[in-house]
Amino acid sequence: VKRVLTAVILIPIVILALFRAPLWLFTLLVLGVALLAAREYFDIAEATGFKPSRFLGYLFLVLSFLLLGGLAEVANIDNPRPFGTGDTVVAVLFWGLPLFAIITPLLFLLQSLDRESLSKSLADAALGYLVLPYVGFTLVLLPVLRVTANGPLYLLYLMLLVWCGDIAAYYVGRAIGKHKLAPRISPGKTWEGAIASVAGAVIVGILLFHFINPIANGFRSAHLLPAPAMRFGNAAVSFTSEIRIAPLWFVAAFSVCVNVAAQLGDLVESALKRGAGMKDSGTLLPGHGGVLDRIDALLFALPVGLLFYAFGMSRYFQHTA
Amino acid sequence: VKRVLTAVILIPIVILALFRAPLWLFTLLVLGVALLAAREYFDIAEATGFKPSRFLGYLFLVLSFLLLGGLAEVANIDNPRPFGTGDTVVAVLFWGLPLFAIITPLLFLLQSLDRESLSKSLADAALGYLVLPYVGFTLVLLPVLRVTANGPLYLLYLMLLVWCGDIAAYYVGRAIGKHKLAPRISPGKTWEGAIASVAGAVIVGILLFHFINPIANGFRSAHLLPAPAMRFGNAAVSFTSEIRIAPLWFVAAFSVCVNVAAQLGDLVESALKRGAGMKDSGTLLPGHGGVLDRIDALLFALPVGLLFYAFGMSRYFQHTA
Repeated sequence: VKRVLTAVILIPIVILALFRAPLWLFTLLVLGVALLAAREYFDIAEATGFKPSRFLGYLFLVLSFLLLGGLAEVANIDNPRPFGTGDTVVAVLFWGLPLFAIITPLLFLLQSLDRESLSKSLADAALGYLVLPYVGFTLVLLPVLRVTANGPLYLLYLMLLVWCGDIAAYYVGRAIGKHKLAPRISPGKTWEGAIASVAGAVIVGILLFHFINPIANGFRSAHLLPAPAMRFGNAAVSFTSEIRIAPLWFVAAFSVCVNVAAQLGDLVESALKRGAGMKDSGTLLPGHGGVLDRIDALLFALPVGLLFYAFGMSRYFQHTA
Repeated sequence: VKRVLTAVILIPIVILALFRAPLWLFTLLVLGVALLAAREYFDIAEATGFKPSRFLGYLFLVLSFLLLGGLAEVANIDNPRPFGTGDTVVAVLFWGLPLFAIITPLLFLLQSLDRESLSKSLADAALGYLVLPYVGFTLVLLPVLRVTANGPLYLLYLMLLVWCGDIAAYYVGRAIGKHKLAPRISPGKTWEGAIASVAGAVIVGILLFHFINPIANGFRSAHLLPAPAMRFGNAAVSFTSEIRIAPLWFVAAFSVCVNVAAQLGDLVESALKRGAGMKDSGTLLPGHGGVLDRIDALLFALPVGLLFYAFGMSRYFQHTA
């Protein structure tokens, strides 16, 4: 019951943030989630016996969101369509990510020189840096992908796939689950649930994509989306076009990949908690465990979303009717 | 003596590879060095008590070199000057690095689910991934920066700064060194040596830059550089221009930053070895310890070189006379 209540409150917030909040507010909200998740990550690392630098972790999370979020804002507002929308994503990712990917790990290595026991400094540095790709570079894809053509719709589509896969796994697994998927990591998970999850995602994925333009029109009537070709103030959201229907096999492949990534993300987070001897990563959300418990699947699904966007999906979402 | 002999053999090889080898061969040579360094990194990690995945580490080192090296080749040959040279670096880094920075860490997390003890899987994943930014993304900057205008000269300049700082620290430190720099990490290092190293780098840096065009002409007479404006076959090296002399303060700042980064890189590697209870990272090079011992300073100096190239140096090196 608690679980349902929390969901009922959270889902409208997510939709409002995704569709109506100005980009800067959306970026800050996602950053907040990333920081909460990072705190739980560090709790896990410490419970496992390490002491990675929280300070550097939080600092570079904030910096990467400021830089990448800021670049997304600039790329989209100051230069309306300076390149194609694909190129916006390119520009944003280029200037920000390599800086963080090349230089930040070295700073963690430097910082760890301070440790009393040098034999632990390498692991501390490595664990400290890992928080950035695990919760930072993944979640920052939300503001980055949001500024693309029909980005909010694409992201909602992705999230719905993750959620419905999760629900299918839970209920089917409970009803008919017999064969344990990974008893050592997460004893509750079954192969039946996992397969139902993939199947559910494919069905929902195909249905949603098929009706995506009527759905977009529904959002427009609800004033969640501006009319086509209208720019939405500071929000830097451009809905310039109808979405072209992609081939069935491509949508099915997309749904399968997103779903499998989501399930693997769930599994990884379960393993981290179990390795640290924890049940939930935190207690922030009543009935839902910690923040990391809620977003673990999304963390792995977002990069898959980026790949599909870069290699094909963008063509359908930025189609001009 | 061994040390001098090895150096006498190695330096000409480095210069030949940098200036004359085709880009693909140069990339493969650097990849070889990266793999040897990665092996020593994994030896250190295992001596410290972890078991990161060597397989994934080597695999993604190879993939990142293939992708980034391949992109450098394409960016430079198929489209002669498709963008500015700065943009080449941009394009190369963009398409390659984010993929590796976002997705690879998640694969290490997945792989580590296999470990017997889940409490070690997080650290193993983090340590396994760290080899990529530490020796991979740093060394791959060699082929990436080489394809820029006068790239080989810029890289040789950077390396000379690192080497001469190293020499100054060694001899001055031995002669007059009294105050220990970091006794816990590397008892041989002194503040006197470190300061001499910075001073030496600044002097050599300013002198070399001042005479960089005569030096370049010397290389041309020795057929190590092609004549200006001539493209050098498959090597994708373009020497299109004289190098404009940068302001003194900028060259001094560059020398200081490269030198400090190099010394810090040296310190970090010493700490890693000491944490693992090792003296040398390996015994490949007679008198020089392992590969990682030789390149530790360069690993930290190259990203600084990239930053300076992106934010200013490129203007001088791609100056058309």
